[in-house]
Amino acid sequence: MDRDARLQEWERRAQPYLFIASTLFLTSYSVRVLDPGLSPAWYVLWETVTVVSWSVFVAEYLARLVFSRDRWHFVRTRWLDLIVTVLPLLRPLRMIDLHERMQLRRDAPGLGLEARVMTYSGLAAALLGYAASLAVYHVESSAPDANIHTFGDAVWWACSTLTTTGYGDATPVTARGRVVAVGLMFVGVALVGAVVGSFSSYLMRSFRREGER
Amino acid sequence: MDRDARLQEWERRAQPYLFIASTLFLTSYSVRVLDPGLSPAWYVLWETVTVVSWSVFVAEYLARLVFSRDRWHFVRTRWLDLIVTVLPLLRPLRMIDLHERMQLRRDAPGLGLEARVMTYSGLAAALLGYAASLAVYHVESSAPDANIHTFGDAVWWACSTLTTTGYGDATPVTARGRVVAVGLMFVGVALVGAVVGSFSSYLMRSFRREGER
Amino acid sequence: MDRDARLQEWERRAQPYLFIASTLFLTSYSVRVLDPGLSPAWYVLWETVTVVSWSVFVAEYLARLVFSRDRWHFVRTRWLDLIVTVLPLLRPLRMIDLHERMQLRRDAPGLGLEARVMTYSGLAAALLGYAASLAVYHVESSAPDANIHTFGDAVWWACSTLTTTGYGDATPVTARGRVVAVGLMFVGVALVGAVVGSFSSYLMRSFRREGER
Amino acid sequence: MDRDARLQEWERRAQPYLFIASTLFLTSYSVRVLDPGLSPAWYVLWETVTVVSWSVFVAEYLARLVFSRDRWHFVRTRWLDLIVTVLPLLRPLRMIDLHERMQLRRDAPGLGLEARVMTYSGLAAALLGYAASLAVYHVESSAPDANIHTFGDAVWWACSTLTTTGYGDATPVTARGRVVAVGLMFVGVALVGAVVGSFSSYLMRSFRREGER
Repeated sequence: MDRDARLQEWERRAQPYLFIASTLFLTSYSVRVLDPGLSPAWYVLWETVTVVSWSVFVAEYLARLVFSRDRWHFVRTRWLDLIVTVLPLLRPLRMIDLHERMQLRRDAPGLGLEARVMTYSGLAAALLGYAASLAVYHVESSAPDANIHTFGDAVWWACSTLTTTGYGDATPVTARGRVVAVGLMFVGVALVGAVVGSFSSYLMRSFRREGER
Repeated sequence: MDRDARLQEWERRAQPYLFIASTLFLTSYSVRVLDPGLSPAWYVLWETVTVVSWSVFVAEYLARLVFSRDRWHFVRTRWLDLIVTVLPLLRPLRMIDLHERMQLRRDAPGLGLEARVMTYSGLAAALLGYAASLAVYHVESSAPDANIHTFGDAVWWACSTLTTTGYGDATPVTARGRVVAVGLMFVGVALVGAVVGSFSSYLMRSFRREGER
Repeated sequence: MDRDARLQEWERRAQPYLFIASTLFLTSYSVRVLDPGLSPAWYVLWETVTVVSWSVFVAEYLARLVFSRDRWHFVRTRWLDLIVTVLPLLRPLRMIDLHERMQLRRDAPGLGLEARVMTYSGLAAALLGYAASLAVYHVESSAPDANIHTFGDAVWWACSTLTTTGYGDATPVTARGRVVAVGLMFVGVALVGAVVGSFSSYLMRSFRREGER
Repeated sequence: MDRDARLQEWERRAQPYLFIASTLFLTSYSVRVLDPGLSPAWYVLWETVTVVSWSVFVAEYLARLVFSRDRWHFVRTRWLDLIVTVLPLLRPLRMIDLHERMQLRRDAPGLGLEARVMTYSGLAAALLGYAASLAVYHVESSAPDANIHTFGDAVWWACSTLTTTGYGDATPVTARGRVVAVGLMFVGVALVGAVVGSFSSYLMRSFRREGER
């Protein structure tokens, strides 16, 4: 119990530093991908920032894993931590989780459950869409038969995928680009689920309230 | 309190004039976009109507903003007003909101909640689809590699986007056209949400009623 | 009241004859569209069957309209009758409505509400998909730049539209074909709504039952 | 009653052997489709495994059908058995059904209803997607104008279909491939329904629990 409490204390204290590291990771990766005219010196600098911030995430996760008593329990209950350590572009997702927990601790949810679900799924969709656009633009821009040529094309593709519209005028053609796309498609289905489910739930409650009046 | 009451009184009185102005805006914009054989004199006339009606919206919004005591509160609570002032093509959406409030004041909703959600989301989808078709046709018709050549193509594209079908045989290729398209896609997801949520809610209530019998 | 009762008696008695007429209409239209090698004599025969059965629908609807006391009320409450009179390909939809009413009269719904919604929306989707495939194949097969060449292509397009997948490898290019397609797209959204809503409702009830145990 | 009990006893005992047979069927079919450089001897060996395991399924189904007292009742209540006997690629689906029944017998559902629905629909989607990719790759790889050339293309197509995105850059062009695709599309709609419905149901319950606190 003591050990768990110390783990939680550590996690609470480490958050601000991890937040700075995740901002640095996202910024350095974005700059490297989006600015083709970067001088070699700057490129190396930004690459170092990317690598160092990623190392911080991996080191912090491993440290916690080694420290925790029941390691399999740790991996299972903190699966989101594992995902954002392997795919650091998604780390800002962790902020949503933190915000939610802080809200619950203060016992002041502020917004209703549906409004929070809508806000969180909107933020998650925006972050995932941006990360997927970056990654797909990164891997597709050098493919010979690509139809995603600019970052604008990648954003356009990401929006059409997230809403499950799928025009097909801009689609990844490389294996790595398609793996990212498959992830985004299933997020699209979940996003539709979150919006639709929240809306349905909101309607049901409105009715109950109307009935009680 | 007095000031708020006067603001509401002003808003109630201004509505008919704003409704006329929004009809004029929609008509003049539609005529300019849809009639390529317009003589220069008529074109200038209709353009003047567009500009004047838009100015009316902006002036009315600014007047209310200056008059209101808590300006940040005004901006936050009337965000729909800000949207329809910046994008006047969507102003008729305001009518839905007004109708709903009038219904509530008369305490006679007439239709059930689901029926109203279906009706309103249907009307909103029709208006947004028409506005998006007009705007996309406007910006795409002069693009060199466009595949939306006629207003019919634009309507076809808008329907395929709103239902998240996304055939991809007619898609915007310009940056401005794609921004409009992204807006319409997310409306499509919300529309599906409204239809599905209302239907689910309606089924649940039917069951409860059957159970009570 | 007497007049209404006689109207209902008439409607009850006319159903079998209308059912035969709607089967004849669907068969004659299908044969004319699907069999390109029809000899002129047979073509004229089947065309006569189409025209006569359609005339029967129109005559029956007008007779009821003239007979009913409150004509506007008649048009409003029997809007499905108006639709299936104008678009007789959809007339078999009327059978679903009839079956439901018969079930209610016998007070033996047999299936639960969700199962009926799933069955009915499945049948409606199948009928509408078949009717849309026929109509689109009919109007597209003679268009010069069509990409729907066979009835199989039309069915393939209809399935991809009903599920809102929208591959875009087979899409109507004529104005009339696109009008049919837009109708089918919105049915697709409603179908998804029916399936999803029923499923959600079924889950909720399962939970309540589990909770009561 | 005695006969039904013996049928159930038989079904319980036969399951492990059928599971081995279904694994052999899936493996042998996969190897034959995915390995183009298979030597003739090995090809014949794997083909024999496919045919023998299929024969086992058919024989077992027919034996149970002949043994059961009310045959029409048997066919109707065990429709999933009929489907997985005709389409043995889908047989692992049977495992989900078995797992669910075992859970119910032990009276220890472990997970909540929504979590089970999400898990089962995820597993079903993965299995159906894999089976459809295999089957489509099998029939399309020899078609002259195919745009699905590799197994990777087939998986990419299956993911875009299951989520109803439908890019259309890789679609089946043969009749048999399209029949498989239509099946997968409707599964896609049902999958979206399962995810959305479960989510909506989960939200509703969260609310009720929050209200009770």
